[in-house]
Amino acid sequence: MEQEYASTLLENAVSELSRLPGIGRKTALRLALHILRQEERMGVGLGEAIINMRRGIKYCRLCHNISETDECAICSNPMRDSSTVCVVESVKDVMSFENTRQYSGLYHVLGGVISPMDGVGPDQLEIDSLVERVQSGEVKEVILALSATMEGETTNFYIYRKLGTLPVKITQLARGVSVGNEIEYTDEVTLGRSLLNRTLFTDSFNNAK
Amino acid sequence: MEQEYASTLLENAVSELSRLPGIGRKTALRLALHILRQEERMGVGLGEAIINMRRGIKYCRLCHNISETDECAICSNPMRDSSTVCVVESVKDVMSFENTRQYSGLYHVLGGVISPMDGVGPDQLEIDSLVERVQSGEVKEVILALSATMEGETTNFYIYRKLGTLPVKITQLARGVSVGNEIEYTDEVTLGRSLLNRTLFTDSFNNAK
Repeated sequence: MEQEYASTLLENAVSELSRLPGIGRKTALRLALHILRQEERMGVGLGEAIINMRRGIKYCRLCHNISETDECAICSNPMRDSSTVCVVESVKDVMSFENTRQYSGLYHVLGGVISPMDGVGPDQLEIDSLVERVQSGEVKEVILALSATMEGETTNFYIYRKLGTLPVKITQLARGVSVGNEIEYTDEVTLGRSLLNRTLFTDSFNNAK
Repeated sequence: MEQEYASTLLENAVSELSRLPGIGRKTALRLALHILRQEERMGVGLGEAIINMRRGIKYCRLCHNISETDECAICSNPMRDSSTVCVVESVKDVMSFENTRQYSGLYHVLGGVISPMDGVGPDQLEIDSLVERVQSGEVKEVILALSATMEGETTNFYIYRKLGTLPVKITQLARGVSVGNEIEYTDEVTLGRSLLNRTLFTDSFNNAK
């Protein structure tokens, strides 16, 4: 049975909220009634923050990360090493790498990975613009930092083939046992890769410094 | 470690979204990035729906249900029986009773129940306005439809005492086995009440008609 709402304004807000991922009509109604119980300032602030974000944020013309300006804060920062480009799936991955504070190069946000099952082909991703960036000459290393899934590996390989003839070093993230994980629960493929790519024990001290 | 955002517009939207109940910063970020991936129309529509709802919805001066006008659609409907008032905790409860399509009287939304633990006393609830409504004379029956919890029962009793001297019939919702529930999993207090208040078997046919 369709729920009856006392007001079309409430009905609209519930409909819009329930279009968000993971939010059904029941949760949307709970959120809307919560907003109604708060001071007007709070609900209006939420609405305005969403509108301002959606209207104000664009994508960096170089790396396709979100940005409030034509070129994002990372691309336009002269302290960053513009000879290294880390290729990631999404804006969120940029945040994750930035939070490690271990990387001072630039990024390139693909906007996804090749996934024929989901109808995502290379043309929907920012792969051509990556090739152009590398062709322009400044980039010396491309770090492939996509998920270690079949789709991620496929995309890695596709990019590798596309960049193959250009004079650029192509690296990928180390595969190995996750820090904090027990060997017992690590899968065999990962264990095999972590054996093959073992590093000098003393290097872990040097990296920690 | 505090997450770094690429943009203060994003940061603001995430902060505002994470003030909603049940939405932490991780979920808020996921929602914000989802909104950014959609067409501008959708994000702006969501923001505007929230603002319009918060600015446009007020509370009915009679029953305190949400309304777009001074008097809500239920109170101003001449087809409804204005001699019966059903006392409920919240706006959501009005919707629940309306959805049963079994009730044609009016409502009175208290805005909660008496709960000293949460610092809610009778003064924060719409009890005085209920007494005034009954004093005005038109009301013949007050149905107490609060939760069957200690707080609900306390509030029921408080209202009963307040209305005690007025010429009005005070009823409460039947307590009994929930429809669809098994006896095995029904608690003893409910079973006891359902025995005491047993109804004629033939009445269930009559009610179903």
